This record gives sequence, structure tokens and C-alpha cells, in this order.
Amino acid sequence: MTTTTEVPADLTTTDRTPAVSFDVDPAAYRHWKVDVEGDVAYVRLDIDETGGIVPGYELKMNSYDLGVDIELYDVTQRLRFEHPGVRAVVLTSAKDKNFCAGANIRMLAQSSHPWKVNFCKFTNETRNGIEDAGAHSGQTWIAALNGTAAGGGYEMALACEQILLVDDNSSAVSLPEVPLLGVLPGTGGLTRVIDKRRVRKDRADVFATRPEGSRGKQAVEWKLVDEVIPKRAWDSTVAERAATAAAGSNRPVGATGITLPPLQREEDADGIRYRHVSAVFDRDAGLVEITVHGPEGDVPDTVDRVHELGADFWPLAMTRELDDLILRLRANELELGTWIVRTKGDVEDALAFERVIEEHSGSDWLVNEIRHYFKRTLKRLDVTSRSLIALIEPGSCFAGALLELALACDRQYMLDGTLDDDGAEQGDEAQIMLSNSNFGAFPMSNGLTRLGSRFYGDDETIAKLRQETGRRISAVEAMDLGLVTDAPDDIDWSDEIRIMLEERASLSPDALTGMEANHRFVGPETMESRIFSRLTAWQNWIFVRPNASGPEGALRKYGTGRKAEFDRRRV
Amino acid sequence: MTTTTEVPADLTTTDRTPAVSFDVDPAAYRHWKVDVEGDVAYVRLDIDETGGIVPGYELKMNSYDLGVDIELYDVTQRLRFEHPGVRAVVLTSAKDKNFCAGANIRMLAQSSHPWKVNFCKFTNETRNGIEDAGAHSGQTWIAALNGTAAGGGYEMALACEQILLVDDNSSAVSLPEVPLLGVLPGTGGLTRVIDKRRVRKDRADVFATRPEGSRGKQAVEWKLVDEVIPKRAWDSTVAERAATAAAGSNRPVGATGITLPPLQREEDADGIRYRHVSAVFDRDAGLVEITVHGPEGDVPDTVDRVHELGADFWPLAMTRELDDLILRLRANELELGTWIVRTKGDVEDALAFERVIEEHSGSDWLVNEIRHYFKRTLKRLDVTSRSLIALIEPGSCFAGALLELALACDRQYMLDGTLDDDGAEQGDEAQIMLSNSNFGAFPMSNGLTRLGSRFYGDDETIAKLRQETGRRISAVEAMDLGLVTDAPDDIDWSDEIRIMLEERASLSPDALTGMEANHRFVGPETMESRIFSRLTAWQNWIFVRPNASGPEGALRKYGTGRKAEFDRRRV
Repeated sequence: MTTTTEVPADLTTTDRTPAVSFDVDPAAYRHWKVDVEGDVAYVRLDIDETGGIVPGYELKMNSYDLGVDIELYDVTQRLRFEHPGVRAVVLTSAKDKNFCAGANIRMLAQSSHPWKVNFCKFTNETRNGIEDAGAHSGQTWIAALNGTAAGGGYEMALACEQILLVDDNSSAVSLPEVPLLGVLPGTGGLTRVIDKRRVRKDRADVFATRPEGSRGKQAVEWKLVDEVIPKRAWDSTVAERAATAAAGSNRPVGATGITLPPLQREEDADGIRYRHVSAVFDRDAGLVEITVHGPEGDVPDTVDRVHELGADFWPLAMTRELDDLILRLRANELELGTWIVRTKGDVEDALAFERVIEEHSGSDWLVNEIRHYFKRTLKRLDVTSRSLIALIEPGSCFAGALLELALACDRQYMLDGTLDDDGAEQGDEAQIMLSNSNFGAFPMSNGLTRLGSRFYGDDETIAKLRQETGRRISAVEAMDLGLVTDAPDDIDWSDEIRIMLEERASLSPDALTGMEANHRFVGPETMESRIFSRLTAWQNWIFVRPNASGPEGALRKYGTGRKAEFDRRRV
Repeated sequence: MTTTTEVPADLTTTDRTPAVSFDVDPAAYRHWKVDVEGDVAYVRLDIDETGGIVPGYELKMNSYDLGVDIELYDVTQRLRFEHPGVRAVVLTSAKDKNFCAGANIRMLAQSSHPWKVNFCKFTNETRNGIEDAGAHSGQTWIAALNGTAAGGGYEMALACEQILLVDDNSSAVSLPEVPLLGVLPGTGGLTRVIDKRRVRKDRADVFATRPEGSRGKQAVEWKLVDEVIPKRAWDSTVAERAATAAAGSNRPVGATGITLPPLQREEDADGIRYRHVSAVFDRDAGLVEITVHGPEGDVPDTVDRVHELGADFWPLAMTRELDDLILRLRANELELGTWIVRTKGDVEDALAFERVIEEHSGSDWLVNEIRHYFKRTLKRLDVTSRSLIALIEPGSCFAGALLELALACDRQYMLDGTLDDDGAEQGDEAQIMLSNSNFGAFPMSNGLTRLGSRFYGDDETIAKLRQETGRRISAVEAMDLGLVTDAPDDIDWSDEIRIMLEERASLSPDALTGMEANHRFVGPETMESRIFSRLTAWQNWIFVRPNASGPEGALRKYGTGRKAEFDRRRV
């Protein structure tokens, strides 16, 4: 690995393995089989029972844990980047009569509250990614349920555009979480049943309280599945449906994919360093300082050159690293409650790269993928339960797409002046720049741009900001335009930032999580935003209630043959 | 009290006082002073420190508890029904330099989880009612903050259309819940700040983490208040703003209000009985059987007659009783987790009364009030954390507005046939009827009708149902039309209902609450629906977390001089 930026001395060794890694070698998937047949990919769930990501349970009945989902996420990414020829994806099981039994119950029962919540968040993001592939990538996922899909298994199917169920007088779809486990379906099930599949609420109520679920004609009539298919016609009908979906895809014919090589990463107890992204931990202060480095080197002048660069093309390389960092920090660094976000680089360079994305994302499949991948990575930030603070300092390059990083933060501080008193920073004053990217390329899950959320209902300001596109904006101007929270001068900067961070760290982590989850999403809601707001919040509540997780709770008693004992008071 | 229906023997005595009563004698308000001056009402908060609804705390600093809010709810209702001449309402404090310090912290610290959640729900409904009065009643509320409005005090102001703050160099608005108490503002504060007042999210973040809040010019610039007014100009400016608001009201001039007399109610350990509404408890089964009786007697043939009848006009009388029953059951009967909803009466009579509402709600203030009051009462059902099951049997009158009761339920069961085997019921088969009321008169908080939610996105079915208006619909037809969940025949009825109720009672109360809260609201969201979904769910979670409510939590440590100890892991 070569880096062109200086690597702090204490980050050059790797003496610490994080609890969860999101690295996946596709040649060594433990739980999935992926076969590309022409323009259709068959993605088969084939859980290795002994392959749990942590000890303590067996993944029976094709049930999954975080490790299974980490592989699934890898599958979705590789299909989009490495297999542009795939126009439809069939999600099915390699095991007969059993599609997937959902999240492993023993895993849930033994997991800490943060683990459960983080697990649900990541799986939700992966399900949303499946829908995103259909909506923006021309890769339509079809769930071919060759056996029972229960709980999270059915929720995985719900993320697909079509659900086909084998008609064998036993295979069913079900959401048994409420009746069997005393928790909610945790990956969007309730929301997708009523919002996406438009199942009547009384039927949804019956369905979600009946452990055996629904099958056959009723499953179709209730809109829980699209079709039930006799066993003898199963393979041919699934192939037909996939072919039809593939025929409607806008994917290019004959395109060659790029390779997503393993990420280069150095880490130790004090941080993680990638080529374009770094994170330095301050455990005493409970914070992590994230720096995203802007592009260096020549801007590709043709789309062919972008394809040649592939995973080395800066926007993609940086996004992959940022994505990995977000996931690692979320899973492994729970006590680092504040994320400081900085950028470093040249404003013009960043915008030059971005123009490539803007010009070609409508016509080139790879550039389109990169745009949507950065969009999804920004969305991860939006739902990250950490305080996000952007520090805009001299030498930063918060411009266009990178400015979205700042806008995703809870607050933005911009230095008015230069920092040269202690030699820490020198040079020009900090500047930010708006580009077209800030007005629609990277929508949030509520369907609004981050500027649209920031200035909710204030079309006049948005129109005014459009006029500022492409101009270097100083700290004082950024304050006037409402783009930053505060712009302390060089005399006040360090004290103000230090005090602000200390205050933040002193607040209740739970209250901050709840507050930020409310403030970040204003105005309209979508199915996706509702999954992260209403459903997730209720699930979090239920997860900490003794009726679910207490010693006599349903989650603990499941499989013991004994019934849960409930506090019957309704809250 | 006289009733025309039979009173079960065990309900004729009152041997039990519920923990919370919602009865209020306006002549004896302990915490509020209401002065009607021409077309403006001044509603002054003047908390009696020793007047807590339960022992254990003093209501210092004009802080409130459930009892204070029960009175405020009564104020809002009487202004609408008894004072039609009021066109603007000034909400202010009778105490100098102190508007309201919000919910009493010691009360919160000593309260059980269900009490806290129920308290927040009721206060939320009252705040929404204040907005409803402005939107639908021509009574615009103006918050005249003559002193500091902190926490719930500021949230009360946020429910008003305008917020005026005295400029005395000390009075401020603030939401100190996160920094001081480790919980969220519990009555819509975060949501209203960003959605209604459209405060930028970064400013909202600063504001909600800064105990001292904001005042003066900044409070206006940040849109936290509409105006700051010097002390010398305070009274006159407030009066001017009220006069301006009043001038814009569509309230009739010279109208005479009706009187809302105390509700007649009989209750004991086994139930509550009003004139038109009754509730029978089955504590072993964990359910309550609610029956709403349809109208009897002549239908008023003129609006004048409606005014003469006043609180005796059946739609209003029934709604008041149902409202009271919902509130009492929610507050006092936590273990009755399932509410069975029945109606009894004549379909034609119910519709005849309803036609009076339909014909005159656009032109007569009182009829308009009754419509919106029933709308608000139905909304209470929508957010009630109990399983709601409608049983549609022979002799019932689920027609038009009353059919909304069934549609608000999680499930609807309709008997196909008559029940005469054990003499329980005889006569004609059950029938339901749609009316215009079902297509817009009583919207849910998501802005959709209950039919619109039930058939979300299915305009064709809605159009088809419109054609069925005014026709008696049998059980079999209701099944075909999708209006009921199931229609067992007389042979299966009792067993099916019994088993269904037993199954329901066996499920986790928390999981049911979360599931129902998700299923009941499909599709679009409004500020109001978001307050009950996202904000409430997060708050519920935070309320049960040790960081807030544990022995070392912020809520317990507040005022002790000692700091809370937080589990710093972010979830």
C-alpha cells in the first residue's frame, strides 16, 4: 500500500483486531452461493451452521447472524460493480423446503442490546440496498421461496420486488416474532407488509400474530406473496420471471465489470487508516477524528479511463473506505460517541472529479453505481447513532459531494481565519463550495436533499443557494447563507471547539441518539425513513423491556419449552 | 341519571375510585385562570404548588403534572363549546418572570414507566387539540411568554400559532431535557421545532443541548419565537396580536355557547357505565367489552334544536362519554390489554343523526365542533396502546361515523347469521353501512381516512366502496368488500372469538403495542403522526434506559447536586 499523505507514527502498526470485520473474500463465502447465468444471478442462501460470527449458537434452519449479512452485503455490492451484465437476481435457498428461518434466536437471546440494535440497522441497510439495486441499478431482485421463509427470512423476501412461493402444502411465509419472541420483526417487515405490499392492516395484524404465517391461495390473496407456483413448474417459472425482469432492465449489454479488491487498511488501538480516509481515536474524550482526503492526481478525461481506474478511481476508493470505516466504528467503537468529520485537499480537484460523476452518471453504468454508492454511504451517516460534527478548517475541501459529509452532520463549524499561532495549520482560509451535487444527486431517505432538509420549506433560500454554486464561500459568507452553525475566528476556535466537544461528551448517550434521530429527518417520510424511525425506535424499546429480554422474557425462554412470563401492563 | 338501556346489576353501585379521574369542575380549577375578554380568552397558568395529582412532589416554578394537563384539556374543550365568541386565546402565566418550567421533574423521577408514557400521550393529545382549535375552530392560540418557558413549558408554547417572548434580558425559551435530564422533550418539542417552526437542524441541535436555551434577538433569528417584545409594550402588543388573530377568525359573531355539564357515570370494580357508552371488565381474560349505544328518540330537525339539546344531543353526549372512557381505561386499567368494541342500536337512527352533522358542520359552529370532537376521539383510539377488536353482531349499528369505530380497530369480526342458540342475541343479521362520513369527515393523524389507510394506494376499491354508500351490507358482502377481517357463521362465532381473544391475551404486551403502532399508520406522515410514532417511540426507549431512569440515571440525579453516571456505549 502506498499513501501520499503522512501516516502518523502510532498508526503504522496493526496490534488490534476489531470485534467485527466487514472484509469478505467472495471466493470463501461460508453462507452464500452465487451463480451468474447469463443476465440472471442466482443467489442461494446455504448457511454453514457452524459459521456463526461469534461463538455460542448454531445457525440452524438457514438462520442468520451478522456474519451472514456481511456476506450478503458483499454479494449486493459485487453484483453491482463486478457483474454489470446481471439484470435480475434470484434470491433463493440451497436447502430444500427451507428458505430461511430469519435471525438466529439464540444469537439474539445472548446478544447485548447494542449488538442487537446495530445488527438490525446493518441488515436494514442491506435490505434497502437490495431495493436500491432495483430502483437505480437495473438489477431487480426476485425472492424465489423454495421453502418456508420465516421472520427475517420473509423480511429478506420483502426487500425483493417479487415474491414467488413454492406451492407444496407446507412452505409458508411468516412473521412469528410477536407471537414467539415478544419482539417486532426487526428488518422492516411490518412496514413493508403494509406500505410496500399494501396488505390490509387487519390482515397484517392476523399475519404478524400467527406463528404459522400464511401460504397458498391466501398468501396471494392477502398480497403477502405475488405468486404460488407448483413444485413441478418451479424452476421453469422462476427462470421465466427472472427473464422477464431482466428484459425490462436498463443495464447495458456486454459491459465488463470492475474488480473490488480487498481494502488496504492499517489499524491499531488508536485509529484506522486507509488510503483516502483516516480515523484517530481519542478514547478519553470519547471521540474519533475522521479525515476524508480529497483526490490527487489527474482527473480521468474519459469514461474509459474511469473504467480502467476502477476501484482506484478516487470517488469509489474513498467511498469504499468511508463505508468500511462507518461500519467498523459503529460495530466496534461504541464508546466513541462523537465523530468529528474533516476533509483535506484541494477544492478544485474534488470538484473536477465530481464533474466526471455528474456528466456520466446518466449514461455510464459504473459512474451511476459510484454515485448511488456514495448516496448510500451518506445515508449510513444519517442513521448513525453518534453525534456528527463537521470541522471546516483551512486546507479542507468541503465542496459539492464532499460538502454533503458536512451537511449530514449535526453541526458544522467553520474557522474564520487561519490557524498559525501554534503552527498547526497555515495557509489560505477555509472555504466551501456548492455544486449541482448538493441539489439532488444524493437524496436522504426522506426523499429530500440535505439542503432541502436543512432549509425545510424554505424554497427561497434553496433558490438563493443555487445561485452560489461554483463559488468559493468564506466562513463569514457561509454563516450568512446558513450553511454552518458557527464560524469562530482563529482566536476563539480551539477553545470553542474543545468546550463544545466536552459538553457533548457529558450528555446522556441515549438522549443524544434519540434527539439526533429526530432532528436529522424533517418533513416527509418514505417507507425507508419510517423503517429507521418508527419501527426501529419501537424495536429498540421492546428489546430493552423485560418482557423480551428479561430472564423470564420471551426471547430468553424461546426453545426452552417454558413460557415467558409477561408483565401484563400495557404501556 | 336515567338510562333507557338496562344496567347490569353489578354496575349499579360505585365502590371503586379510579386512580385518575378526568372530571374537572371549571369553577374550581386549581392551576388555571381563564378570563374571557370580548373575543379573546386569556388562559393563565397559575400552578398551585401543593396541588399535585399524586403525593410526593411540589409543583414549583409553574411546573405541571397530569392534573394540570387534565385541567388544560378541560379549558380547551370549554372554550370551543361554551365560548363560541372566543376567536383568539392568549396562553400566558399568572406568575411574573416565569411562564412554565415544564413537566415536574420529581414527578417524572418517581413515576412508573407506564405513568410517564401515558402522561406524555395525554399531554401530546392536548397540544394537538390546541392546534386543532386553530385549524378547525377559528380559535387561534397565542403563547405570550411573560417569563421563561422551559421544557414542557416551551412545548406548550410550540403548540400555539404564535410565540411572543418578553424581552427582559432574562426570560428565555429552552428545551433542557437532553442536557439536564437525559430524556427527550416529551410533548412534541423536537418535532415542532424542526417541522412546524422550521428551525435549522444544527440550530435545533445547539438549542436542545443548551440548558439555558435562547432569548432575545437570537430566539427570533432562529425562529424559536416569533417576536420579542419589550416589557413596557408587553400588554398592549399581546392584546394587539390577539386582536389581529381574532379578526381573522371565521367564528360567528354573537353565538351562544352550550354548557358541558358533569358526565353521569357509574362505576365499580367490574366496569364503567355512562348513558350511551358502557364498559364491562373481564380481569381474568385481560379485556374490556365496550359498547357504544346508538341514538334514541327524535332526530333534531333544525340546527336550533341541536343547540337546544346541547350536551344532550346524542353525537356529542356519546363522544364525551367515549372520550372519558378511553382516558380512564388508558390511565387506570393497564392490564386490560384488549378492548372489544361493539355498538348497539338502529342503523337508520344512527345515520339520521349523522346526517345532521354532515349537513350543518360547514355552516354551524356547534355542529362543526361536534364533528371535530368525534374526530379527535377517534384519533385517541388510533394511538391507544391496547389491542382493539370490533365485534359486529346482530343489533349493532356500525354505520357511517360509528363504523369508524370498527375501522379504527386492529381487526373486525362480523357475525354471519344470528345468534339464538343460547338466547344471547336474536333478530336480524348484523349489517353495516357506509356513509359519506367514511370518506373524509374524520381523518386520522396521517391525513388519510381510515378507509384510505385500510386500502392504502388502492383508489379503485375506495371508488367502489363509495358506490356502496347508504346500502345495508351483510357479513358475506362485507368480507367481499374487505371491510371486515372475518365473518364466522353462528356455529363458529363464539369459539372463534374466544380463541382469538385468548391468543391475543397470551402475547407480549410490549410487542403488541409496537406492532399495532406500526400497522395502524400506513403511508404518509404528518407532524402529528410523527410525534406519536418516531418521537414517542424514542422517548419510550429512553425512559426505560438506565441512563435516564436507573438509580444513577439523569432523571433520578437531577436536583441532588450529583451527576448522573452514564453507560457511555452508543446504541
